[in-house]
Amino acid sequence: MDSRESAAFSAETYFATQPAPPSLDHDRASVRDFVLRQTDLGNKVVLVTSGGTTVPLERNMVRYLDNFSAGTRGATSAEYFLKAGYAVIFMHRQFSLQPFSRHYSHSTNPFLDFLEIEHKPSASASALTTPEITVTPEKRADLLSVLTAYKTVQREGTLLTLSFVTVNDYLWLLRAVSEELSEMRRNAMYYLAAAVSDFFLPRQKMSEHKIQSGKGSLHIEMDQVPKILKPMVDEWTREGFIVSFKLETDPQLLLPKCRQALKRYGHQVVIGNDLNRRKFEVVFVSTNNGTLSESWLRLSEDLHTREIEEDIVDELVRRHQAWTNIKQ
Amino acid sequence: MDSRESAAFSAETYFATQPAPPSLDHDRASVRDFVLRQTDLGNKVVLVTSGGTTVPLERNMVRYLDNFSAGTRGATSAEYFLKAGYAVIFMHRQFSLQPFSRHYSHSTNPFLDFLEIEHKPSASASALTTPEITVTPEKRADLLSVLTAYKTVQREGTLLTLSFVTVNDYLWLLRAVSEELSEMRRNAMYYLAAAVSDFFLPRQKMSEHKIQSGKGSLHIEMDQVPKILKPMVDEWTREGFIVSFKLETDPQLLLPKCRQALKRYGHQVVIGNDLNRRKFEVVFVSTNNGTLSESWLRLSEDLHTREIEEDIVDELVRRHQAWTNIKQ
Repeated sequence: MDSRESAAFSAETYFATQPAPPSLDHDRASVRDFVLRQTDLGNKVVLVTSGGTTVPLERNMVRYLDNFSAGTRGATSAEYFLKAGYAVIFMHRQFSLQPFSRHYSHSTNPFLDFLEIEHKPSASASALTTPEITVTPEKRADLLSVLTAYKTVQREGTLLTLSFVTVNDYLWLLRAVSEELSEMRRNAMYYLAAAVSDFFLPRQKMSEHKIQSGKGSLHIEMDQVPKILKPMVDEWTREGFIVSFKLETDPQLLLPKCRQALKRYGHQVVIGNDLNRRKFEVVFVSTNNGTLSESWLRLSEDLHTREIEEDIVDELVRRHQAWTNIKQ
Repeated sequence: MDSRESAAFSAETYFATQPAPPSLDHDRASVRDFVLRQTDLGNKVVLVTSGGTTVPLERNMVRYLDNFSAGTRGATSAEYFLKAGYAVIFMHRQFSLQPFSRHYSHSTNPFLDFLEIEHKPSASASALTTPEITVTPEKRADLLSVLTAYKTVQREGTLLTLSFVTVNDYLWLLRAVSEELSEMRRNAMYYLAAAVSDFFLPRQKMSEHKIQSGKGSLHIEMDQVPKILKPMVDEWTREGFIVSFKLETDPQLLLPKCRQALKRYGHQVVIGNDLNRRKFEVVFVSTNNGTLSESWLRLSEDLHTREIEEDIVDELVRRHQAWTNIKQ
């Protein structure tokens, strides 16, 4: 496996040559309504992107290249933003974790395990009993807390959920949501936690049907995805507070890559995380009057049951408040 | 993208050069216990494999090649096998659908939506109420039915769940489970519904860290996964009833590919399905006294709410019964 020189697609060329997803207009309209309603209510809005993107290798998609991401960072952060009073546009990879239901993964904490069937005597005189479904006592308090927060968000209409699968869906949707959300100017935050593929296979190079095996090894050549943070900062958003993420596996590369991203795109914060330490350590890289500033957020070992997203969101809410205080 | 001639790995070479997953011994031991217990109980056992496999491109896995599969076929079939009195070894891709909980996808039928918080008057004289969690009345009957089946299976210990992620995990685990299950001879069925990658990247060719973008396009060259149905039929299992699947997107290729697989591996049944018609149409390809036999299973349009897996399992249970009746 290697990577070779090739002309990268510009964002402009990308959108001119790759097809928009069919749900785009519908999604854009729902974002527009949401932004209007939250503006009326005086709420700040954060766009949270979450989960990985796929790169289909075939038009009738059977095989695809994927990025590792269960969507924990995004789903957890969305919950804390809601708790902090933000309205949230949660733009996530289909089937990745979602706020609230994330606590009840079918694999690690299946909800069927804490439901019980109770045969209570029927009110009538007959011998028949009516089975009732109840929650295991030791699970009741946690579930009640999650359920209460979930019902509040539903009642208040402060969460809009959108989904994507491919990197192409993601790019089109991100542009549309950003353009709509830019109406809120400095009251909008963009929290780009999705793990987006750096490479894609242009529609024009895709094979129509399932690639047949039995003919030897498989060769795939992919093009670079355009660096969309550039047009996002310069064109799609207006004075919004933009937070991007860098995930690396080589600790030596983490800070240099964060600094490079901030310098290249000129947005507000890059949050750097190492694949193996991301649950208890991240670094905020930002500029302060033209000077690079780096601050580490670390959970001490006895706090490893705490979710670091709570602290990330606290810090960002504080910084976003300062950002909205700047004269516009 | 293209595929070129290269020497395919034999299964033997594969296992001699690729590392076993760390959980293999533990999983093998749990299968051995399960098989012993089910043999004592006089149960037939079916191995159901389900979900897609990944092919990591990096040792510190961030990117991977994946196959499309939510695991619906496998999870649904496992439920019907349990209902038919089989004990089930459910070997699935981590986070793919599972029997029972599959009815409550977080995306399409989230369980938090049908739980309610009821404030009932407390038994004590104080004004405080004790909040209780109840199930929305219109969801109660369905949930009670799923929950009852789930609790029964748990009580009887007839479901063993194992998981894999990569195609390498899958291959090692399949061999180990097959070898253990072969103790049951004709009383074992192998229902291979997982969507297994045809290609993989040998450990020796993998990059240590995340592949860096910014250097142009990405080139990947993958080797062919060995055709493991051959050793499975000839070496790992003894007289077991083996069912494999073919998924195609080009209808012209479906039957030829099924016939070819049956001829090449000499097992009992190939079930063919087209990606877009798989929910209501499959074809059973088998040999009957040396003659190829093909029978279609189709749900009529008014039955499209019925799950075709119920009919697939019915048919296989019938055929497996005939298979066990053959003098051993």
